[in-house]
Amino acid sequence: MMRRDDRLDQTFAALANSTRRAILARLANGEATVNELAEPFNMSLPAISKHIKVLERAGLITQGQKAQYRPCTIDVAPLREISNWTEQYRPIWEARFDRMEDYINQLSNKEKNSE
Amino acid sequence: MMRRDDRLDQTFAALANSTRRAILARLANGEATVNELAEPFNMSLPAISKHIKVLERAGLITQGQKAQYRPCTIDVAPLREISNWTEQYRPIWEARFDRMEDYINQLSNKEKNSE
Repeated sequence: MMRRDDRLDQTFAALANSTRRAILARLANGEATVNELAEPFNMSLPAISKHIKVLERAGLITQGQKAQYRPCTIDVAPLREISNWTEQYRPIWEARFDRMEDYINQLSNKEKNSE
Repeated sequence: MMRRDDRLDQTFAALANSTRRAILARLANGEATVNELAEPFNMSLPAISKHIKVLERAGLITQGQKAQYRPCTIDVAPLREISNWTEQYRPIWEARFDRMEDYINQLSNKEKNSE
């Protein structure tokens, strides 16, 4: 079993590529073979296979074992882990948004008073 | 202005390192100088400075401009963007969790019936 820190390292690294994020978005709509995934990206099969391996190692997709037809399926568990990690910072951005709102309200009050 | 895809690439890559995530966690509690950040990690100043530069390029921290005392501050805007990106997959993991719950309920019902 990988340590949580190592899992997060691997998930974040796998997501740091727009093609890999697009593959996940495609698989969110249902399983697909490597050929089906390669098509919309106008990429060679070896290039797309490399991306799929990175996603597989990070646990973000699983690939069927039947030869020829080996569909890829999304696995969202690592995404949930990333979401949980990110949530710890939500209070900070919500506080900043509240302060920004206060500031905008102050500005519009000043404008009203000077009318 | 960077494209959203490039920003996500850079943010995810910056977060794919446990030391950099620990630096962010430290800065969530308030600003800190590079020296203060280096201390708990038992790392050389050049090593920690490299991590800080990666975080800065990703817009996750800003560093004050005053010479000598240049405190680092967290900037959570890229984290909110990551959170928004991850949220699109929430329906999938919630659906899976619901199915798992159904399955567990079925199992415990079967157990009750066989008692």
